[in-house]
Amino acid sequence: MPMRIHAILVLVTACAVARLPGQSDDIRRRYQPVADRIMAAATADSAAWNRLAEMADRFGHRFSGSESLERALDWILAEMAKDGLAEVRGEPVMVPRWVRGLESAELVGPVRRPLPMLGLGGSVGTPTDGITAEVLVVSSFAELERRAEEARGKIVLFDVPWQGGYGPTVRYRSTGAIAAARAGAVAALLRSVTPYSMRTPHTGMTNYDSTVARIPFAAITVEDALMLHRMQDRGDRVVVRLTMGAQSLPDAPSRNVVAEVRGSERPDEVVVLGGHIDSWDVGQGAMDDGGGSVAAWEAVRLLHRLGLRPRRTVRAVLWTNEENGLRGGTAYRDRHEAELGKHVLAIESDGGVFRPEGFGFTGSDSAYAIVRQVGALLAGIDADTVSRGGGGADIGPIMQRGVPGMGLRTAGERYFWYHHTDADTVDKLDPRDMALCVAVMAVMAYVVADLEEPLPR
Amino acid sequence: MPMRIHAILVLVTACAVARLPGQSDDIRRRYQPVADRIMAAATADSAAWNRLAEMADRFGHRFSGSESLERALDWILAEMAKDGLAEVRGEPVMVPRWVRGLESAELVGPVRRPLPMLGLGGSVGTPTDGITAEVLVVSSFAELERRAEEARGKIVLFDVPWQGGYGPTVRYRSTGAIAAARAGAVAALLRSVTPYSMRTPHTGMTNYDSTVARIPFAAITVEDALMLHRMQDRGDRVVVRLTMGAQSLPDAPSRNVVAEVRGSERPDEVVVLGGHIDSWDVGQGAMDDGGGSVAAWEAVRLLHRLGLRPRRTVRAVLWTNEENGLRGGTAYRDRHEAELGKHVLAIESDGGVFRPEGFGFTGSDSAYAIVRQVGALLAGIDADTVSRGGGGADIGPIMQRGVPGMGLRTAGERYFWYHHTDADTVDKLDPRDMALCVAVMAVMAYVVADLEEPLPR
Repeated sequence: MPMRIHAILVLVTACAVARLPGQSDDIRRRYQPVADRIMAAATADSAAWNRLAEMADRFGHRFSGSESLERALDWILAEMAKDGLAEVRGEPVMVPRWVRGLESAELVGPVRRPLPMLGLGGSVGTPTDGITAEVLVVSSFAELERRAEEARGKIVLFDVPWQGGYGPTVRYRSTGAIAAARAGAVAALLRSVTPYSMRTPHTGMTNYDSTVARIPFAAITVEDALMLHRMQDRGDRVVVRLTMGAQSLPDAPSRNVVAEVRGSERPDEVVVLGGHIDSWDVGQGAMDDGGGSVAAWEAVRLLHRLGLRPRRTVRAVLWTNEENGLRGGTAYRDRHEAELGKHVLAIESDGGVFRPEGFGFTGSDSAYAIVRQVGALLAGIDADTVSRGGGGADIGPIMQRGVPGMGLRTAGERYFWYHHTDADTVDKLDPRDMALCVAVMAVMAYVVADLEEPLPR
Repeated sequence: MPMRIHAILVLVTACAVARLPGQSDDIRRRYQPVADRIMAAATADSAAWNRLAEMADRFGHRFSGSESLERALDWILAEMAKDGLAEVRGEPVMVPRWVRGLESAELVGPVRRPLPMLGLGGSVGTPTDGITAEVLVVSSFAELERRAEEARGKIVLFDVPWQGGYGPTVRYRSTGAIAAARAGAVAALLRSVTPYSMRTPHTGMTNYDSTVARIPFAAITVEDALMLHRMQDRGDRVVVRLTMGAQSLPDAPSRNVVAEVRGSERPDEVVVLGGHIDSWDVGQGAMDDGGGSVAAWEAVRLLHRLGLRPRRTVRAVLWTNEENGLRGGTAYRDRHEAELGKHVLAIESDGGVFRPEGFGFTGSDSAYAIVRQVGALLAGIDADTVSRGGGGADIGPIMQRGVPGMGLRTAGERYFWYHHTDADTVDKLDPRDMALCVAVMAVMAYVVADLEEPLPR
């Protein structure tokens, strides 16, 4: 063996040892059998997917303030009680109530054509007859600034390509109405925020500020945004009529749904895991985030069914109103403020229950070292990658109070194809993948809840 | 060199020689320079794609009997004249006129939910109030036969998975209403014929026969067909209300559009190339088959612009009414019946102008040997595969009269994602790919039109 290769091997071995100190061997020895048992039980059937499908088919989407959300919550609470879970309850949360009403967009010049659209959440409506105005298409905020003179009295369309992922593009959905109003526009349109389209509009939350008028704001499809841009480039005068019956009504009552496996030794110390049970008012909200919610619930049910009772409590929380208010996440923090010091870990799944790859983690270095070792228990199903950075919108408020946070990572290449659309339906998820997500969340929650020492902060 | 490898090399060399007889060297020597010139010119810009986009944006879809089709044909004829093409003309064709009218489907039990749908072409409508009936979901004709007793008075939904491609699945669209009516159903629904869905209904032609009642027939989305099937499997009573204003009106005038580069020596001998200019009444009909039509037109324009005048005439034909009648293809055959003996080749593009791979050919062995040698001229752009079997719906009637036929083959993996949907828009095609299709069609048409001897039958 040449010296150089030998030296590399020694280094690799040393690194491997450095990554697996004594506690790791201990975690593996103590918990691999139970982890294997959890993984086998989770993947023995399609229970999680079937439960999600039943919920999605019976109640459809679950938008904050809607009857379908509250009926779904009633059903979940009843099912959780039947499952025999502990401390099943709905914790009251007041949520915003934005209603879409009737809405449409039509190209009226240079030709007439319907434009499939979705008003953006929180948008104001138009007058009953709609707003008919010439369109100015821009590719960026910078172009709007350069052409601000041309925007006055018009409808500004942000035709922003999907570049560098969600973050750089969704800015236009969040603040496009503000920028357009600042330039004197009477309404705004957005190319849907997505890397792929089948003439599919995507909704999502938008914001106003107090310095400029609130103007109606809606998403059209990628296809139609490109078409309007081409028309403008050809010198055509593009005219659109936008009609939106959107309005914001008084807050409505909703609930965070909670169910537990109580800890055997330290029940007041808690590992929280969950997703958000509310969705946008389109499709079935199956991927975003019915799947994450049901996977967390199923993970806790699985522990209960297997008679696995860790030292600490494992608590599934199905947060309400992530999409247009985050009231569920903030209400959980406020209600449990005094107990947050004993929340040892919070896990969220909100990236779609596609094939799991592992977790992203936010917390101290010493905690990170431990959760990586727990993650290594998932090597058998290729879901053992625990990397730095991760959490979730709903656990954000308690992470800000110091609770270590973790987000489930999945192979969600098509997540943004379906995100906030009518195509977010249960068939986009695979029963086996979802079962693996249940397994992964159950193993992580169980082991962290059962360690002798709480996860260090 | 070991004996065995040497023997294989000798064999390979012999085969290569067998595949490239004298005429091949001749075709390559004589035509590679002009083929290269055509390919370079076709791919120098995005002219073809831009022309298609302009047509699609200005006129939208082009359904038989619609004003938008006839206005598009007027525009094409004017543009062809501006291009300086020869013998530009519209050849009259009477086409069926089916109108969709207002239509909708709604799930009314076990829950209420809108079902995105498209009536199938040729279907009868429902009474004004629609048809409300319980649904029987079946996976196949065989299951319907087994459960025929249950179908009486119901709406039959064919939830047939995409298996083995288009052929086995589209049978249900073609004859589903007949089978359902035979079992006593009052209407029929179809899971859209597609391998992929974003809650996208697909329309297409359906048929009746004279032995059973004509019942309304519409496509719903894959997602909703799966949902209704799950509901039935859970024991739910599934009830749908189907409302369709569809009707068949008297035939309407349309045209096949023709333009030529006249042959220099034998102008009465013709190579025909084209696509169908009509589309379904959804999307832009850009892929199916605006792209094939414009590519053929652009191929002829390119020859004209380059001053390339082959011995025989090269004729672009944009057939009307392929989708719901094939009247354009049959009218072309009838009008040109006496000249078909001098049609040396007919080429159709109706698989989407995606990246070209070559052609499929139907004709004699001796003709096949020659067109393969012509195809070899396209090796530089990886489009040199000429295989057995190919043609197109519009050239079918003249192929039945003995005209050798050829279909452009492209990398259309997603063709059936967009086929007959609102998502068939010009952005699904790539300018460079379309330019390559123009090049490939122009080279094949030019060289076959210029060979000393006509392609043998």
